[in-house]
Amino acid sequence: MPLTGPDSTTWPVPLTGVVPPVCTPLTPAGHVDTRSLRSLVEHLLAAGVDALFVLGSSGEIAYLSDAQRRTVLGTAVDAVGGRVPVLAGVIDMTTARVTDHARCALALGADALVATAPFYAATHPAETADHFRRVRAAVDLPLIGYDIPSSVHSKLTVPTLLALAGDGTLAGLKDSSGDLGSLRRLLVALRARGLDRTFTVLTGSELTVDGALLAGAHGVVPGLGNVDPAGYVRLCAHARAGRWAEAAAEQDRLASLFALTETGDPAHMSVGASALGGFKAALGLLGVIDHPATAAPQRPLPDASVREVRRILAEAGLL
Amino acid sequence: MPLTGPDSTTWPVPLTGVVPPVCTPLTPAGHVDTRSLRSLVEHLLAAGVDALFVLGSSGEIAYLSDAQRRTVLGTAVDAVGGRVPVLAGVIDMTTARVTDHARCALALGADALVATAPFYAATHPAETADHFRRVRAAVDLPLIGYDIPSSVHSKLTVPTLLALAGDGTLAGLKDSSGDLGSLRRLLVALRARGLDRTFTVLTGSELTVDGALLAGAHGVVPGLGNVDPAGYVRLCAHARAGRWAEAAAEQDRLASLFALTETGDPAHMSVGASALGGFKAALGLLGVIDHPATAAPQRPLPDASVREVRRILAEAGLL
Amino acid sequence: MPLTGPDSTTWPVPLTGVVPPVCTPLTPAGHVDTRSLRSLVEHLLAAGVDALFVLGSSGEIAYLSDAQRRTVLGTAVDAVGGRVPVLAGVIDMTTARVTDHARCALALGADALVATAPFYAATHPAETADHFRRVRAAVDLPLIGYDIPSSVHSKLTVPTLLALAGDGTLAGLKDSSGDLGSLRRLLVALRARGLDRTFTVLTGSELTVDGALLAGAHGVVPGLGNVDPAGYVRLCAHARAGRWAEAAAEQDRLASLFALTETGDPAHMSVGASALGGFKAALGLLGVIDHPATAAPQRPLPDASVREVRRILAEAGLL
Amino acid sequence: MPLTGPDSTTWPVPLTGVVPPVCTPLTPAGHVDTRSLRSLVEHLLAAGVDALFVLGSSGEIAYLSDAQRRTVLGTAVDAVGGRVPVLAGVIDMTTARVTDHARCALALGADALVATAPFYAATHPAETADHFRRVRAAVDLPLIGYDIPSSVHSKLTVPTLLALAGDGTLAGLKDSSGDLGSLRRLLVALRARGLDRTFTVLTGSELTVDGALLAGAHGVVPGLGNVDPAGYVRLCAHARAGRWAEAAAEQDRLASLFALTETGDPAHMSVGASALGGFKAALGLLGVIDHPATAAPQRPLPDASVREVRRILAEAGLL
Repeated sequence: MPLTGPDSTTWPVPLTGVVPPVCTPLTPAGHVDTRSLRSLVEHLLAAGVDALFVLGSSGEIAYLSDAQRRTVLGTAVDAVGGRVPVLAGVIDMTTARVTDHARCALALGADALVATAPFYAATHPAETADHFRRVRAAVDLPLIGYDIPSSVHSKLTVPTLLALAGDGTLAGLKDSSGDLGSLRRLLVALRARGLDRTFTVLTGSELTVDGALLAGAHGVVPGLGNVDPAGYVRLCAHARAGRWAEAAAEQDRLASLFALTETGDPAHMSVGASALGGFKAALGLLGVIDHPATAAPQRPLPDASVREVRRILAEAGLL
Repeated sequence: MPLTGPDSTTWPVPLTGVVPPVCTPLTPAGHVDTRSLRSLVEHLLAAGVDALFVLGSSGEIAYLSDAQRRTVLGTAVDAVGGRVPVLAGVIDMTTARVTDHARCALALGADALVATAPFYAATHPAETADHFRRVRAAVDLPLIGYDIPSSVHSKLTVPTLLALAGDGTLAGLKDSSGDLGSLRRLLVALRARGLDRTFTVLTGSELTVDGALLAGAHGVVPGLGNVDPAGYVRLCAHARAGRWAEAAAEQDRLASLFALTETGDPAHMSVGASALGGFKAALGLLGVIDHPATAAPQRPLPDASVREVRRILAEAGLL
Repeated sequence: MPLTGPDSTTWPVPLTGVVPPVCTPLTPAGHVDTRSLRSLVEHLLAAGVDALFVLGSSGEIAYLSDAQRRTVLGTAVDAVGGRVPVLAGVIDMTTARVTDHARCALALGADALVATAPFYAATHPAETADHFRRVRAAVDLPLIGYDIPSSVHSKLTVPTLLALAGDGTLAGLKDSSGDLGSLRRLLVALRARGLDRTFTVLTGSELTVDGALLAGAHGVVPGLGNVDPAGYVRLCAHARAGRWAEAAAEQDRLASLFALTETGDPAHMSVGASALGGFKAALGLLGVIDHPATAAPQRPLPDASVREVRRILAEAGLL
Repeated sequence: MPLTGPDSTTWPVPLTGVVPPVCTPLTPAGHVDTRSLRSLVEHLLAAGVDALFVLGSSGEIAYLSDAQRRTVLGTAVDAVGGRVPVLAGVIDMTTARVTDHARCALALGADALVATAPFYAATHPAETADHFRRVRAAVDLPLIGYDIPSSVHSKLTVPTLLALAGDGTLAGLKDSSGDLGSLRRLLVALRARGLDRTFTVLTGSELTVDGALLAGAHGVVPGLGNVDPAGYVRLCAHARAGRWAEAAAEQDRLASLFALTETGDPAHMSVGASALGGFKAALGLLGVIDHPATAAPQRPLPDASVREVRRILAEAGLL
């Protein structure tokens, strides 16, 4: 599937399978560690993932400067070399800023864009829809809506998504809302309109992938997939083959592995720093990346937490 | 399965299948319509449900006086006549009040109690755990924890639930949090501790029952099950038999039917009034209850909404 | 000002000054300590407060059984003996339940009722307004709206309050929203309509009383006023006399004293348990009540916290 | 007061009085209207304001591209010509991005920086404090913390602010939290530590300025001050002279004028679009700016709303 640019004929419609939100390896000084990023890309592709999503929440997008964003996307596109599509996050406060990132992502060779609703300044649903329409009109790449209320503090509603799917503004959805009931209603409504064959629905809820696929989602964007991409590839293969009990068992295993996101000290660090620190500590212990550093001002995992991450990896048979 | 009291040998462990949260039929003057309630009980039992949950959110518990609560529970217990277990909601602000309701429910013949964490006054998780321990110690009936953050404004965490499952305080969970990721982690952890055979997990998320059952939940408490109990019974039967594609298809059908909860006028009535009004309008149109009245101060469904409910029922083949 | 019942000619219009939300003293076994409650009433009246509000959040209303509510109100009415008006909280989930409490409060001799919007089940503003109208129609006592979004999870909006002030449903507002901007807009609008002479506005924000009085509020319902009623009485007297710098200095002193609400251990108890425990520990140290016990399942203040409360009282010159 | 750079001897300590958060005039095509911006600066300085805050929420910071941010700040610094200090918002998701903006602001001649806690990715209070320390260490300009939970979704706590005031990280606070109780506790604690003479506290709550000044705040950052800067200058002068009744009357007048922020159609536009559209419509009607355009994707005010803005201005005697 050699994709080399925004040629819409080569963008898979719909995109299916495992699309890890790639972590951004950093050096202890806080620079993008491009060597480790290339290594992580190989780790993921070797497991058989279907596409990569760079510059998402798991990629610490909120913490990266514009220069770092460019380094990450440029490095990833080059490392992938067209083997799978590269989706680029263009996360920013609102339309003008998102459009600037989108133009940059197009120039750097992204195959698709992933954008949230505006944040910081709250918008009306009608304004949110207009936001996506303006971004799509400005840059000719498939645009995926990113629903992540925990960061954006608003939810993309089913009516808004149906409108944006119906008029071709959005090519798909990355749903990190955790609201599988709403997702179900979207999937049923898309099917009723014949849009399920063109509009890609990816769940970002990494602990309920079996249920989401059973409900008709096309794929998954699992942060935990940085650590165990093969597990998610197996889960999707089971689902595709209708082996639902096996899919559920694989999901159960991954749910246990998810404990590596919660080893941090809640008295001194954020939930996010614990989760991203856990992913990176695991990738370091697995020899995929050189440094477990997370971006400032996140606190690093204490040593006891790293030992706990090691124990969890070992228990899961990954070490 | 003739259950006539708090004899723990007769409480099914775990409780499985469909447990509708029974609507509370009212007369136009706002009194409990016991004739319609008995009719609704028959409607549900005829469809093959496994237990009934009275005095829950779908039962408009928040709107009922203490006298009405007693009428509802007494009528339901009598109407059921021991054919299935009757779970009684004992929803109130905190421990002393919940305990008073629990004593009353025991006297009226409930087979189990369903209680939330304290609300109005926010409690610490340690205080919430203590709340459940005190209620359980005061009244000798199986106690189900009810996790409904949309009403209670706090979430029962996995560690708290594991502690309360492990020490026998809680006999189960009704999860209306919508957080299936958290539910998955609970189910995996219960299994790892051998508690999944004694601790009942019921999902209240009526649009994702297939996924919840695939993940290991024991059953479902679907508000929509008042209207179409047979649909949920079929869904559970498919799941029990491993017919996951059929389970998903049934869930999709029920997700479409769920539209009957959203016909109300959002400019003049609450989301809840629209949903409960939709259930009751449907039950009226189906001839199960005599009046579609909801409790004050909820606004009644306008006529146009009732026509829309009729259209949805007809489209679903229920009329 | 001998008020002995719902005679509207004796209800002060508007009610002005200091209206402490009376704590509910409990015995170590959790019963209402009527002796201490009488002592607390004398402590407050001796300081010159203008009315009492029993069965509010500071009175641990959420934790009390119906029988305890009756004991508290009956004891307080008897202890006051008509010296000042007694406002009774009738806090419950929605209309029918609130009305039951209101009837009981009328029978027990309350001079006015204080009710929130419905909670647990969220209502539309139109339904909320209807709720107050139904309660007012059912029981002939002045009705005060209680705006406390931290507990009720909705806010009484300015348009709703103006409507309910204008048609005589509400005799006043107790504003514990902390939103002084919204309060300002209400006060300005009441004045523009000539309603400021009949509609009583009391702030429950005990740290910003000077500003609220400067903005035109009629009085204050300060939880901290249980401990230092004389301070709030002085603050109001300064304000009434236009001595704003002195009012601000008194408020500053009370803001420092407020530290006694935050001595608890946040790892093991709720914010509310710390605050109520602080009030009661202080009242115990001052010799006003016999036991500092708070209602279950709130955790008691640890000894170190009680020592800190003593230190704060001493520093404030109250011990 | 010719301020030409980060010379700390020229930064007023503390900064007092009226510091309008300057609106960003735009052309109908969405470009920064520098002519109108210069006119707005003169409108504000002519009224006697004490400093200007550009690139804040009222400046539509969330909607501006980096290039537009530079144009706004450069134009404002040039237009002001050292007559008053210019505070520059450096609002972005987290440390690295904020630092980039801060360097740019220094180069463009800002006198001080205004930064929020990180958003999008939630941080722990310890991480938030570290964020401010890193920004301050990177760029040698006075740094003001901007507390605006409605946009940032976390609150700067009193302990964090006291720590950052005490170690010199922050030179002040712009408090748009609306939580005047917390502000009071901060002011009392700063005074107890002797920090009130060096740490500037500005309220962004434009409807409660009299109370905030009475409590000891040094000044105000009123969005409504774009429209009626003279009103806020009078309010502060009254407060400074101890004429509190006159200050309150002026505040009441401004609270009525605030109605111009709420003329928009809530069914089709956000609260923010209505408020910013109201400010800009008023400035257009007053002849201060050429176009009332707000940034995309905000919906423009409908004609009926603009007529209502005109009516409100006329009623206030401003037209």
